[in-house]
Amino acid sequence: MGKRIGLNLIEHSSPTGATYLWTHPDDHTEHYKDLSYWVELAQLLERAKFDTVFFPDALGVLTTYQNSRDVAVREAMSVPKNDPTYFIPAMASVTSHLGFTVTCSITYDHPYSLARKMTTLDHLTDGRIAWNVVTSNLKSAALNFGLTDQLDHDVRYDRGDEFLEVCYKLWERSWEDDAVIRDRQARIYTDPSKVHDIQHEGKFFRVPGIHLCEPSAQRTPVLFQAGSSERGREFAAKHAECIFLNAITSEETKFLTADIRRRAEQLGRDPIGIKFYPRLLPVIGTTEEEAKARLADYLSHVSTEGTLALVSSWTGIDLSVYKEEELLQFLEKRGTGTQHTADSLYRYDKDKKWTLSELSKLFAFGGLGGVTAGTPEQIADYMERFIDETDVDGFNISYMVRPSGIVEFAEQVVPILQNRGRVQTEYQTGTLRHKLFGSGSQLPADHPGKQVQLFP
Amino acid sequence: MGKRIGLNLIEHSSPTGATYLWTHPDDHTEHYKDLSYWVELAQLLERAKFDTVFFPDALGVLTTYQNSRDVAVREAMSVPKNDPTYFIPAMASVTSHLGFTVTCSITYDHPYSLARKMTTLDHLTDGRIAWNVVTSNLKSAALNFGLTDQLDHDVRYDRGDEFLEVCYKLWERSWEDDAVIRDRQARIYTDPSKVHDIQHEGKFFRVPGIHLCEPSAQRTPVLFQAGSSERGREFAAKHAECIFLNAITSEETKFLTADIRRRAEQLGRDPIGIKFYPRLLPVIGTTEEEAKARLADYLSHVSTEGTLALVSSWTGIDLSVYKEEELLQFLEKRGTGTQHTADSLYRYDKDKKWTLSELSKLFAFGGLGGVTAGTPEQIADYMERFIDETDVDGFNISYMVRPSGIVEFAEQVVPILQNRGRVQTEYQTGTLRHKLFGSGSQLPADHPGKQVQLFP
Repeated sequence: MGKRIGLNLIEHSSPTGATYLWTHPDDHTEHYKDLSYWVELAQLLERAKFDTVFFPDALGVLTTYQNSRDVAVREAMSVPKNDPTYFIPAMASVTSHLGFTVTCSITYDHPYSLARKMTTLDHLTDGRIAWNVVTSNLKSAALNFGLTDQLDHDVRYDRGDEFLEVCYKLWERSWEDDAVIRDRQARIYTDPSKVHDIQHEGKFFRVPGIHLCEPSAQRTPVLFQAGSSERGREFAAKHAECIFLNAITSEETKFLTADIRRRAEQLGRDPIGIKFYPRLLPVIGTTEEEAKARLADYLSHVSTEGTLALVSSWTGIDLSVYKEEELLQFLEKRGTGTQHTADSLYRYDKDKKWTLSELSKLFAFGGLGGVTAGTPEQIADYMERFIDETDVDGFNISYMVRPSGIVEFAEQVVPILQNRGRVQTEYQTGTLRHKLFGSGSQLPADHPGKQVQLFP
Repeated sequence: MGKRIGLNLIEHSSPTGATYLWTHPDDHTEHYKDLSYWVELAQLLERAKFDTVFFPDALGVLTTYQNSRDVAVREAMSVPKNDPTYFIPAMASVTSHLGFTVTCSITYDHPYSLARKMTTLDHLTDGRIAWNVVTSNLKSAALNFGLTDQLDHDVRYDRGDEFLEVCYKLWERSWEDDAVIRDRQARIYTDPSKVHDIQHEGKFFRVPGIHLCEPSAQRTPVLFQAGSSERGREFAAKHAECIFLNAITSEETKFLTADIRRRAEQLGRDPIGIKFYPRLLPVIGTTEEEAKARLADYLSHVSTEGTLALVSSWTGIDLSVYKEEELLQFLEKRGTGTQHTADSLYRYDKDKKWTLSELSKLFAFGGLGGVTAGTPEQIADYMERFIDETDVDGFNISYMVRPSGIVEFAEQVVPILQNRGRVQTEYQTGTLRHKLFGSGSQLPADHPGKQVQLFP
């Protein structure tokens, strides 16, 4: 029997993520504002034994395309966007096992308040929280936080390293395991000698005090990362326990997986202790023909301009200045945004000349690849084959029409994979980290979060 | 029949707020970390027709006393402390009417992210969110956010005025009512011409962009304030729709109420459009004797040192340097902390010489006064009489032992007041603001939040 296939759902706190076709007649994405939507989704995912639901987030609007927010606003391309962390307590209250991956920026938040937010959520969920660590890349976010421009790409990662160091000190070193004793006779709720000031003084942060919360089950939430630029992979290799991949092909997946594992090993970490999850966007039909017809139908609802606005912000290049079919010299024109798109395209096919319409289709569903149309059996076959070829650990499932896309996957594809012994039929016990890695609730000893010292 | 008595519960995200006696045998305050505690509490409060549950918060530790956090940590005096905003989605998912008052600091948060947080919660609760606006007063919080010291008291309020101005622009002016149209045929989810950049450029903040969320039912959450210093009252008179009072006596209550109403009127607001809620800490017995015996029992669990640590941080004066019974020259020794305690004492009795032990008892339950011990009928009588004498709008109920204190009040006192027609037996329809004021979901026209302009 093959390796277990882990399942995560990508869900957005917007009417569209990168993928929801809000003009489609089956779409009911306007319920993104309703608590009942999120509660029912949690119940569906736990029935289907998903590992986690993953909430991307960004505190800005896409403004690179045409130097304007108009296309993004008109197409609801990641705007409006609520704060997804607030879905979690309600979703946790109707589930017992489902994990929750929160995206929080290390650029526009402060480690002192972010650490409390994560610990609170980890307490309330009994240890089911993961943190997707992102360095924000939207200029509009920087501006609205009062900066004159976004931080330089590599500086963002340097600041990110220190941000995590502060968090590790707060989570792992401030409160000893037996600090809270609740001794009524001795009148000691917490032993002050077992709670430590972290005394952090760095280049970006100065945090002298104690963590505000007592330790939660996991202390440090499970750490997810998605960076795939050179600096991003180094950052991921140092900190991440799970990696989201946007890779196009199994070759690309294998390249990134091997590269990050190699870097992790050089940093003294167990390279197979990192889990990888590429994106998968299944389109399901009762026959292959029906699935392909549905995909064609879905593609007809794709907004080319909306997609270009998305890619423009990803690459930092205003694609509105290029004429249809005009060659985009991506690699020569690395802009101020994230380099990951350009890097991925480059690795995918160095010599290919991409046209605008090709790019638009490529990006139509929010990223590089992962779209697969077929019967439930064909999709299950594809997933098994991809896992066996690449040795990744599962998928981030995305979908096109909300909520039918996820309901169909959960009810039609998951049971097949469960019958084949590839998707779990019962959850493991314990915290999210223990469920994923089987080795306890806390960070492993070789992780920098466990090695951080207060007085080095 | 007299005026309706509104009910709010004060609840802390800590093992103790100012009031929970964690050493008492009946105390089960360790459940503050559990989602099930908060869910059950919400159900209890909605059964008893409470208006809101109010969560105080602070992002720091009490360190003024002995220039140390040790007493606060040992006595769990507001530490550990989780982020209370995360209780709300779970509590909202099992209720339909109960309101939620969130405390967020305008000193250590940024208006751009705070505005999104509030709008998200207002969407998820269908318009049941209130914001208790505080200017943080803990030096330890300032230090952990990288500042060398906390902001000056009056500068905090100036920054607060601008913080609210930014929020008003985001909530009230960025998205027009009919901006979101979801027109599938025309491919317009949101009409970009009806979404406005706020273009805010001020002394403390620069926020050029649009609000990230579409408007929620209330747009601006119901605004609560508790400041009672001179500058704090001016701030409250300008912004607050509801005021929490810590006043000692009905005279003090009448003074503060009249003073804030007068200031509000001078600012062009309807003075009777502001609601006032003093604290009430009921101790219930089947007989008056039993109630008094319970109060004596509870007082025996008060930590004098813990209380002094609390008061030291409130006043900014390290009370550990004074010997027992030594006179505290509060008014001559105004420290760096909030002046509200000293001001209140001064107004209460200008000439009284307070001793440490008197002060400790006075503050034992987390503030000035409000403790009343008696049978359920006696407590109901007291509440009716206090309301009729002072013309306030209800109470903030606090309690000493968790959770029995609130269960007893809800099950024994509330029904009496309902039978007397003083507490509602059914909720009004609509949003929290409509329930409280009966005049629609949004801010009234005379409120500065409704008058803010983008291009003045």
